[in-house]
Amino acid sequence: MTKKTKVNAAILIIGNEILSGRTQDTNTSTIASWLNSIGVRIKEVRIIPDIEKTIIDTLNVLRKENDYVFTSGGIGPTHDDITAKSVSNAFGIKYEIHKEAFKILEAYYKPGEFNEGRQKMVWMPEKAELILNPTSGAPGFSIENVFCLPGVPSILKSMLGGLKNKIVGGEPILSHTISLRTVESEIANSLTKVQNQNKDVEIGSYPFFHAGKLGVSIVLRSDNQVRIDNCNSQILKFIKEKKIEVVDR
Amino acid sequence: MTKKTKVNAAILIIGNEILSGRTQDTNTSTIASWLNSIGVRIKEVRIIPDIEKTIIDTLNVLRKENDYVFTSGGIGPTHDDITAKSVSNAFGIKYEIHKEAFKILEAYYKPGEFNEGRQKMVWMPEKAELILNPTSGAPGFSIENVFCLPGVPSILKSMLGGLKNKIVGGEPILSHTISLRTVESEIANSLTKVQNQNKDVEIGSYPFFHAGKLGVSIVLRSDNQVRIDNCNSQILKFIKEKKIEVVDR
Repeated sequence: MTKKTKVNAAILIIGNEILSGRTQDTNTSTIASWLNSIGVRIKEVRIIPDIEKTIIDTLNVLRKENDYVFTSGGIGPTHDDITAKSVSNAFGIKYEIHKEAFKILEAYYKPGEFNEGRQKMVWMPEKAELILNPTSGAPGFSIENVFCLPGVPSILKSMLGGLKNKIVGGEPILSHTISLRTVESEIANSLTKVQNQNKDVEIGSYPFFHAGKLGVSIVLRSDNQVRIDNCNSQILKFIKEKKIEVVDR
Repeated sequence: MTKKTKVNAAILIIGNEILSGRTQDTNTSTIASWLNSIGVRIKEVRIIPDIEKTIIDTLNVLRKENDYVFTSGGIGPTHDDITAKSVSNAFGIKYEIHKEAFKILEAYYKPGEFNEGRQKMVWMPEKAELILNPTSGAPGFSIENVFCLPGVPSILKSMLGGLKNKIVGGEPILSHTISLRTVESEIANSLTKVQNQNKDVEIGSYPFFHAGKLGVSIVLRSDNQVRIDNCNSQILKFIKEKKIEVVDR
């Protein structure tokens, strides 16, 4: 693949437990941080229920609009794990036993323990490539630009390293954070001026409350360090004029 | 409004800081848990960047497909806070100073402190209804079926109570959890049978790792307590046969 300047991805979190509020999703931030570190920008995240039609329709939109799609959830052994079947149907390809995955799990479990429930986890779209799972055996898989990972955060995290050679990122996304002892409204106008003079740097302003004190973190993001440094100087200049304290954060 | 049996909502999280992985979203689970408690089911969550066109397009899809839409983020005083303007444009209505909001913030701040940055927060879609903010003054707003809340989790949380009379939920969503000292693959087949016999109960199976031990939580959800109880009995029956321990969780 030729290296593109900007590479985009979407994250698709699949699971009723997130939509009911029962489970706090943390996989979005895990996947997003990792992708950012290899030069892939997240354009969109969607969280949807365990409904096959919804998974198919959503995936077919996201995989066309993005360089990569990462799904999380629904690849375990129970009846509500329908991601692999839905992905097969989204691509219109066969859902079948993956021979290599079968061998991996057959070797992983003790003799007699590779039962019918566990065997469900080796059913995948035809010609899927495996994503190895160093934590609990059952692999994830990829097909074209779609990468399917499990929902359990610790397992998902342990599988990302194995993906590194499969993802081709763009220019690294650089960022710089300036944290201030102030409130947003004190700096809003000055910050708008800096943003208007630096349209190619994404400037975010995020209030925080830490150790009993209010503050604001300004985050500068760009693929060009010189542009970030320039922005940073302009911000430090108005901060000095306003006598606002810079803090560690 | 006539009370509907099933009431659906979507959550729209707006903010680059979530997509970059810098900030862990917790507002989804806060809003989802609260809506569930008043009989509103979340059909979908989307997380999108601070880009006006994206906000407009996404909101115009979600507000047509759902009874309610809740947005979080982008209503503060800085240049990257573009939710109110984008919502106005999504509805094709004027973006203007909200007189009541102006009065609230004028009274909230000390004389001379209601500066230009802070005044940005009273710009809203024409005829927006205010959502009062008991924490930090600046109100959210609603227009038709769209409710716009801030991104700071503690402030958002404090504003939900004031929404109660504006949201008409459907049948309450009841749930029951059974936690087991087992792994999913041991119960997958039995659980599939129970699900097939109880199609109107949503049965979720969620592995957990707690205090050094593996377990599975089975969550039963329905608006019919009798159906949940029936499902529960069938599950307890196969658990007893398999000699699986029920645990607190």
